[in-house]
Amino acid sequence: MTELSRYLNEKQALMDTALKDCLPAEGTRPAVLHQAMRYCVLNGGKRIRPILCIAVAETFGTRPKAALAAAVAVELFHCSTLVHDDLPCMDDDDLRRGMPTCHVKYGEANAVLTGDALMIHAFHILAESGSARLSLELAKAAGSMGVIAGQVEDLDAEGKKPNAGLIEFIHMNKTAILIRAAVRMGALVGGAAEDELETLSLFSEKIGLAFQIEDDILDETSTDEVLGKPAGSDAEQHKMTYPAVHGMDVAAEKVRSLTSEAVGLLNMMPRNTHILRSIAEYLVSRRS
Amino acid sequence: MTELSRYLNEKQALMDTALKDCLPAEGTRPAVLHQAMRYCVLNGGKRIRPILCIAVAETFGTRPKAALAAAVAVELFHCSTLVHDDLPCMDDDDLRRGMPTCHVKYGEANAVLTGDALMIHAFHILAESGSARLSLELAKAAGSMGVIAGQVEDLDAEGKKPNAGLIEFIHMNKTAILIRAAVRMGALVGGAAEDELETLSLFSEKIGLAFQIEDDILDETSTDEVLGKPAGSDAEQHKMTYPAVHGMDVAAEKVRSLTSEAVGLLNMMPRNTHILRSIAEYLVSRRS
Repeated sequence: MTELSRYLNEKQALMDTALKDCLPAEGTRPAVLHQAMRYCVLNGGKRIRPILCIAVAETFGTRPKAALAAAVAVELFHCSTLVHDDLPCMDDDDLRRGMPTCHVKYGEANAVLTGDALMIHAFHILAESGSARLSLELAKAAGSMGVIAGQVEDLDAEGKKPNAGLIEFIHMNKTAILIRAAVRMGALVGGAAEDELETLSLFSEKIGLAFQIEDDILDETSTDEVLGKPAGSDAEQHKMTYPAVHGMDVAAEKVRSLTSEAVGLLNMMPRNTHILRSIAEYLVSRRS
Repeated sequence: MTELSRYLNEKQALMDTALKDCLPAEGTRPAVLHQAMRYCVLNGGKRIRPILCIAVAETFGTRPKAALAAAVAVELFHCSTLVHDDLPCMDDDDLRRGMPTCHVKYGEANAVLTGDALMIHAFHILAESGSARLSLELAKAAGSMGVIAGQVEDLDAEGKKPNAGLIEFIHMNKTAILIRAAVRMGALVGGAAEDELETLSLFSEKIGLAFQIEDDILDETSTDEVLGKPAGSDAEQHKMTYPAVHGMDVAAEKVRSLTSEAVGLLNMMPRNTHILRSIAEYLVSRRS
């Protein structure tokens, strides 16, 4: 097992425990809501965003525990967006990580409310940690000029003529901005100086975009079994994707150049960033 | 014009301005989202929750401006729940305050995302104010053991046998808990001592329950024109209501006793609470 695999496994386990602990027990009234919340979060997710958050905090010599509230909040928010994105009125997906999506299992109304509850719980966790600064980072990235903006334009772009500016807006907002928030929150917990925060922000935008372009590529080239969801669903839903706009070769080259620029930024930092570098490279070499 | 009418008009205007100012401009990308957010908030709402928040802060000698972030956040969150409650998979309402509901005007996907964006914006405003304590109050009241819990059980109760415990759970969580949060946030801004915070919490639970029971009564006895939404919609949707469980006479008596208990609690406080008293009485004497 490589050092990175060990690191990812260890942090994934840490996150799974933290997420289990932070969610109300299944029996808590209303039971169906708390069951659904746990179902949508405790589903074997890769925990990429929270692991990045923790890894960045560790780069500053901070213990993972100090970044746990930030990491948990980012993952809860991410899960909430998946629940809403899967709804019949949005992407209408039946499968997520190989399992029935929330609305298939719990009904549509409960799925809307489960997404709402997870979203609020993310801010609950940050409020409990006592940091308005971390809440501000998440709220800025999550809101109407962030993740939600990306989702609105993603839906609106379906079936439209490929457009380079539009796909960049969608990828930046729908995906990169939350990865950026995860990284910045880790840096804030670690006490990063302003210039390091800036460098890490740029780093995270680049790996966030690379990650989403790789996702588009995998959707087109992988199989249902490997992805845990229907491969080719982007094309079927007439989604605008990076390969659809620029072609597969340019997409693959863009993933490589963004990753190498991101790693170049890390090298400017007077810190041991080898784990961050490994994660950046892992993000674009994964199979699902 | 009575002193209360003047007070309510003045604070309503203050809130309308604050809400206008806190929302991104209509042209902000994605324009449809920001138009929808403004449409769902700037619609002539009565602003009961934020006015209570400000009135409580004023009871402690605090200027309205200091309570504005809390007041705005509570109202934004309230509006977000209305947008989601109106969705086809929930109450499937076409009208809200006499206007087409969000999903009727902007489509279902945009309505889900507009509700999400308003919810996140509420926490954004509180984070900008720098107070994790206020965020915690809102998150606790809003989440899976608060407003969302109330909505889950409200939907689940449709068509079921009237049940006194269940209707109290629904009313407490769907309505009273957010009125309680508004009052507590105003008290926190005002620097209330622990015992005053407790007294005001009880006060707000009572007026919150009275308010919701009165709402049930109005739905059964008023007209479409006066309500700005279809009268009798509770019965049509087989909603569980307080009058359906206890009968109309008991319901009216409960409204009176809760209000008088609430006013009794105010009288225990060594403050000038006459505006709070007037608001408590107004809440159950309104026609819509």
